[in-house]
Amino acid sequence: MATTTQSVAEVCAAAKLASRLLATLDTQAKNAALAAIADALEARTGEILEANLLDLEAGRESDLGDALLDRLALDERRIAAMAAGVRQIAALPDPVGEVIEGFRRPNGLEIRKVLVPLGVIAVVYEARPNVTIDAAALCLKSGNAVVLRGSSSAANSNELLGRIAAEHAPAGAISVLQGAGREVLTELVTQTANVDLVIPRGGEGLKAALMEHATVPVIYAASGNCHVYVDSSADLEMASEIAYNAKVQRPGVCNAAETLLVHRDVAAAFLPRIASELQAAGVELRGDDLACQLVPGMAPASAADWDTEYLSLTLAVGVVGSLEEAIAHVQAHGTGHSEAIVTRERDAARRFQREVDAACVYVNASTRFTDGGEFGMGAEIGNSTQKLHARGPIGLRELCAFKYLIEGDGQVRS
Amino acid sequence: MATTTQSVAEVCAAAKLASRLLATLDTQAKNAALAAIADALEARTGEILEANLLDLEAGRESDLGDALLDRLALDERRIAAMAAGVRQIAALPDPVGEVIEGFRRPNGLEIRKVLVPLGVIAVVYEARPNVTIDAAALCLKSGNAVVLRGSSSAANSNELLGRIAAEHAPAGAISVLQGAGREVLTELVTQTANVDLVIPRGGEGLKAALMEHATVPVIYAASGNCHVYVDSSADLEMASEIAYNAKVQRPGVCNAAETLLVHRDVAAAFLPRIASELQAAGVELRGDDLACQLVPGMAPASAADWDTEYLSLTLAVGVVGSLEEAIAHVQAHGTGHSEAIVTRERDAARRFQREVDAACVYVNASTRFTDGGEFGMGAEIGNSTQKLHARGPIGLRELCAFKYLIEGDGQVRS
Repeated sequence: MATTTQSVAEVCAAAKLASRLLATLDTQAKNAALAAIADALEARTGEILEANLLDLEAGRESDLGDALLDRLALDERRIAAMAAGVRQIAALPDPVGEVIEGFRRPNGLEIRKVLVPLGVIAVVYEARPNVTIDAAALCLKSGNAVVLRGSSSAANSNELLGRIAAEHAPAGAISVLQGAGREVLTELVTQTANVDLVIPRGGEGLKAALMEHATVPVIYAASGNCHVYVDSSADLEMASEIAYNAKVQRPGVCNAAETLLVHRDVAAAFLPRIASELQAAGVELRGDDLACQLVPGMAPASAADWDTEYLSLTLAVGVVGSLEEAIAHVQAHGTGHSEAIVTRERDAARRFQREVDAACVYVNASTRFTDGGEFGMGAEIGNSTQKLHARGPIGLRELCAFKYLIEGDGQVRS
Repeated sequence: MATTTQSVAEVCAAAKLASRLLATLDTQAKNAALAAIADALEARTGEILEANLLDLEAGRESDLGDALLDRLALDERRIAAMAAGVRQIAALPDPVGEVIEGFRRPNGLEIRKVLVPLGVIAVVYEARPNVTIDAAALCLKSGNAVVLRGSSSAANSNELLGRIAAEHAPAGAISVLQGAGREVLTELVTQTANVDLVIPRGGEGLKAALMEHATVPVIYAASGNCHVYVDSSADLEMASEIAYNAKVQRPGVCNAAETLLVHRDVAAAFLPRIASELQAAGVELRGDDLACQLVPGMAPASAADWDTEYLSLTLAVGVVGSLEEAIAHVQAHGTGHSEAIVTRERDAARRFQREVDAACVYVNASTRFTDGGEFGMGAEIGNSTQKLHARGPIGLRELCAFKYLIEGDGQVRS
């Protein structure tokens, strides 16, 4: 467990040491630790609420704003949800040791490619204290040590939650860094000898800071500018349900749609109808010229709208002349997260899936399914929009590296 | 094809555009381009030798040194070998489109995880001009655009080789950056909008420069400080063959052994015998106290020897008291490349494979097998000692990312 008397380098070195032990722990031992953490969270609810109250009071004094205060606030229900989340992670299959490939070479060498923990993972996050527990539990289950660096506004909550988790894990396995300021962050993300991966969960400012300073590999778990494209051959009833779901069901998350593209041939039949459904749900629509002609009263979209991740009940609406134009729009404005086409035509579906460069490309389904749980991976620590190592949901298996285990009978190379 | 009139940013933007087309090219088209490149290399041998002569003359004038001049020099045989290498890459299976996982969710969504090209790969390398062609061919086959940045000492050779390759590939697919100085490198490795991955092939200076400047993800293809550990239960005849092979067969490569560790119980029986075999092959041995006692005349190892990748006919020799001590030595001094144990005991083999943190962990086989060809992957662009994305040989499949293709019948999330 981290204390403020240890330097960042010392915490990371202790984590590296712990990672050696964690890599060899069997599943039962890891699950027992997770169960103990879940029990302790529930048993110490009062203590956690007291620590959280300190953060809330400090937040009110520094005018943190209602939205951030709400994200920061814990109550009995939220603590119980954290404990339940830990128990869910304990119930997931252990990825460590999974043989992902195996073959025998002509010379008799038997080669297995086997999942192993990455080692030490640094998770850098903002606001919500539950990330402390989620990240600790996912890393523990996947045999990784974790160094957590939350926001200073949640310092008291994170410190206690991290301490509770650390008390039930091997020494050094779970640490919470304390100390305000960017220096701690910069030091953390340059510990190349002891930290194997940085996973940030935060906004563009955090991303920019990491881009500038990090020498440890980073998986950017970015938010998404996702599109739903309604092709000329689409089942318009299905298209309406998908567009509505992708925008309205939970607008504040990264896999919600931000732009609706409609083929010109079905725009007149489709747009007025979906517009009134969306408007009835409180969605503000911003359209291009053709969309505005078809939907009286729709606000005109500015150039910036096509690149905006609203994360709210706002939707940009564009009319395109062809599948090619739709793909070109997605390529120009998408962030590589989740993109959907609604179509009856096999060729259009295949072409959209082949040419759109995104983690998840949907045919006739809502973008909202991009999620570790929905993909059957269990919990996730984020959603990668970059291409290396992990793309899409980052679950337990994505927190692993692999190694090759090679068995011989004295083979030498000639 | 790059010309000196294009800026680094323009070259990378053109590569990104080309990568869209490359991602959709079918295997036949890519193989036809590779065949044309191989033919052109042979047909234009005279022209290539002329360009190479310019580099060799400049190298001699600037006192480049015999070893580097030899690496730089091309002849008809080396050019024919390059062409043969390109034809071998054409003959390999196309990784693009390979379904690496596929499943149906309870709600009927069908999800496939499919290999796709990474996009634009920057390869930064030193000396040998054949890397220009190897890298271009591997990237083309895997559907990636490539931006090449060789050393200034091979500028004329690389420029012509890159131009020949580019003439038979889609516009922008293969580019060679010209212009000396670290500015070009720094600009290249910060093109986050258009470059998806940097692969360096070079020494520690290049690695340090990239660590400092790169914002694009980098796969470090480092050399290796590899160990052979002879356990107390080892078949000493087998151990002798493996140790000899790992050191002597090709000492200048990254998967050659640099340290031999021997269990105390078999040191007296094993060390004098392997020492005389190795010394007969011209190997200089540097031992710890116990090793020196057992092999009269062996030079004592300094602390630095345990961390030195000799890449030559020198071998450090240590005697350890236990399997645990051997593993601890490997963990402290290894670079995560290739490590071998020779043992008859199942538990020792399993424990060594589980606890040693390296890309390739061998039981009863030479470390020299860590190689794309030996693993059945065909050609390789390097060997990764880092853990993210690719670990071990980097072949065609490691030059790919994946995406999820999801097919539905109107599914929405509730």
